[in-house]
Amino acid sequence: MIGYKCLCRTWQTVRSKDSSICRVQVLVKKSGDAVMSMPGICAGPFSNTLVIDLTHVLNGPFGTTILGDLGARVIKVETPGHGDDTRTYGPYLHDKSLYFSFVNRGKESIVLNLKDDDDRAIFLNMVAQADVLAENFRPGVMARLGFSYDDLAKINPRLVYASSSGFGQTGPLANFPAYDTIIQAMSGIMSVTGFPGGAPTRVGTSLSDLLGGLYMFSGIASALYAREQTGSGAHVDIAMFDSTLAFLEHSLMEYVATGAVPKRIGNRHPYMAPFDVFECADGHVAICCGNDHLFKALCEAIGNPQLAADPRFADNEGRIDNVTALKQALEASLKTRPAAYWLTAIHNAGVPIGPLFNVAEAIEHPQSKARNMLIDAAG
Amino acid sequence: MIGYKCLCRTWQTVRSKDSSICRVQVLVKKSGDAVMSMPGICAGPFSNTLVIDLTHVLNGPFGTTILGDLGARVIKVETPGHGDDTRTYGPYLHDKSLYFSFVNRGKESIVLNLKDDDDRAIFLNMVAQADVLAENFRPGVMARLGFSYDDLAKINPRLVYASSSGFGQTGPLANFPAYDTIIQAMSGIMSVTGFPGGAPTRVGTSLSDLLGGLYMFSGIASALYAREQTGSGAHVDIAMFDSTLAFLEHSLMEYVATGAVPKRIGNRHPYMAPFDVFECADGHVAICCGNDHLFKALCEAIGNPQLAADPRFADNEGRIDNVTALKQALEASLKTRPAAYWLTAIHNAGVPIGPLFNVAEAIEHPQSKARNMLIDAAG
Repeated sequence: MIGYKCLCRTWQTVRSKDSSICRVQVLVKKSGDAVMSMPGICAGPFSNTLVIDLTHVLNGPFGTTILGDLGARVIKVETPGHGDDTRTYGPYLHDKSLYFSFVNRGKESIVLNLKDDDDRAIFLNMVAQADVLAENFRPGVMARLGFSYDDLAKINPRLVYASSSGFGQTGPLANFPAYDTIIQAMSGIMSVTGFPGGAPTRVGTSLSDLLGGLYMFSGIASALYAREQTGSGAHVDIAMFDSTLAFLEHSLMEYVATGAVPKRIGNRHPYMAPFDVFECADGHVAICCGNDHLFKALCEAIGNPQLAADPRFADNEGRIDNVTALKQALEASLKTRPAAYWLTAIHNAGVPIGPLFNVAEAIEHPQSKARNMLIDAAG
Repeated sequence: MIGYKCLCRTWQTVRSKDSSICRVQVLVKKSGDAVMSMPGICAGPFSNTLVIDLTHVLNGPFGTTILGDLGARVIKVETPGHGDDTRTYGPYLHDKSLYFSFVNRGKESIVLNLKDDDDRAIFLNMVAQADVLAENFRPGVMARLGFSYDDLAKINPRLVYASSSGFGQTGPLANFPAYDTIIQAMSGIMSVTGFPGGAPTRVGTSLSDLLGGLYMFSGIASALYAREQTGSGAHVDIAMFDSTLAFLEHSLMEYVATGAVPKRIGNRHPYMAPFDVFECADGHVAICCGNDHLFKALCEAIGNPQLAADPRFADNEGRIDNVTALKQALEASLKTRPAAYWLTAIHNAGVPIGPLFNVAEAIEHPQSKARNMLIDAAG
């Protein structure tokens, strides 16, 4: 993702009564690479794509921002008065909301009152020319405005119309209040994040909001590709709840296979050991031994080769059955020296190991620099 | 996502010396809806798309499986002998690996030794006909086989060639060992997940593996769309590390805005209060008050209206500054009754609230049923 360090070049939105699609303002300058590096496509895969962006706050804007990063012209439609709520959210950089810029960089903006007849005419004129319409209102809001998929497909049958919401456009919870924390709580992801005996734990980012946005982006790209074959647009219906369920992985498999309710197991892998985070003298390291050979190499690297000969730890099954004793034995050695020592010694022994970085260490790492992960988008 | 409850219909891969692309076997039956519901596209947006799938284990296969769910023909290339490692991973259902089926449902499979001349000819013949090639080997492996993007683009300039890896194809860490736990540790996400005073916490799913897969799918869809405009394929370079950094959200913003290292703050929202998980008499609920009006309604619903009059809690800023005292005050009331009581009472007061579900409760919920989130894909 690009442009975290982005500045709003101009701030106020302006109201337009002109029925043409006009370039109102550049909120942030576009720049650099993205998570998706595509050397073959310089201008961006969506460089001829016009997106009408009715999304607000975090979930929807995160998805449409990726379209913009990859070349699309994204025109954000904001409500009269204060515009998108996130314009007032911290943190701030040079008195501008970084939160707003994070998910709206590179977009243009127009203020429209979708209940006003003149503005509705402007909006419908934009829709007629657009490739994509994205929205994350509560289900039913667009239909009440007269802008359901069926309404707009009549004006523009090639329109890809993407709806992102907490629980989707259908089902008994379609109108249930959907904030990231509530979706994380209801999806089960909190119930399997954290430690045995500890509290259910929220993922330390708005995972469900962002996943919904990324799935929405994926759905839009897929439907645009399909349109090139069929000539027809589509309605893409994304739910943050569905998106989070799709990420439950081994917990969901376990439940399906056994009927047992998966529990919190801390930082360890459910099926492999040692495959966990371990304490050293001054911090933590992550060590991943996927087989007996690596376990033996680890025991030698930490100066405790007899550990590999312990019958309890002879194979992966035994190591999982005795995972607490194994961790204690390994940490008894690891705690004698600092993490930096072990990162070299264990890495040199051919055993997968990595440091635990904080956010500053992660983003300032030479790897992040080499990949252009943080770019100043101020013009 | 569909087909969690999927069964392998046939198990063994077979070796083919035939140079045509042949239907070797159906591993799992395709079925149902997906996270991306597109009523307008019945056959799936990728129904005319051929994918050569060299991916293995979790990250890459998760991405190519979405292509298959949405209609693509995906031919998985497996190594002679045991095939994909995950064929031996638990959990098992009817003696088949559910882990393998989870990320390979709907695919065909062919066994090829990519160092054998005959098999290389088969492979190149497949590549010549394909729309997409996906791989998640360590960077450099494909080039050493003579199958770099530049090599294969000569045979098929329309090929979309997607590489997913731990740290990407470039940068000083390109060859660093990349397991999900190591990427989570190095991305900073663990440093901001968990409680103040507690340990850094792994997200309870293979977040980095799955995010890399989802970004890879997105990149493939984007490059296919671009190909329809330009006639040319592209090389898509996805890193699990980049993908996880892109999801750091407010932690990254905070670091960029202030230079301070973000800390673990438990389950609460960084900028809004009360916006957290709270203990009731018999369990937890998530409550999200985005403004003063909702806070007042919450205080009334829990029978403690004087709380809203406390000057410490008069506005959001005060509630954040006194977030621990606020939580204690709210929980003093909430702990007097069970979660089910509060879910009704507080919801009826118009305040966003949701239950904390375990994985079984989440997936068995009528909403998950209505959205077809769990489908038996056994034939």
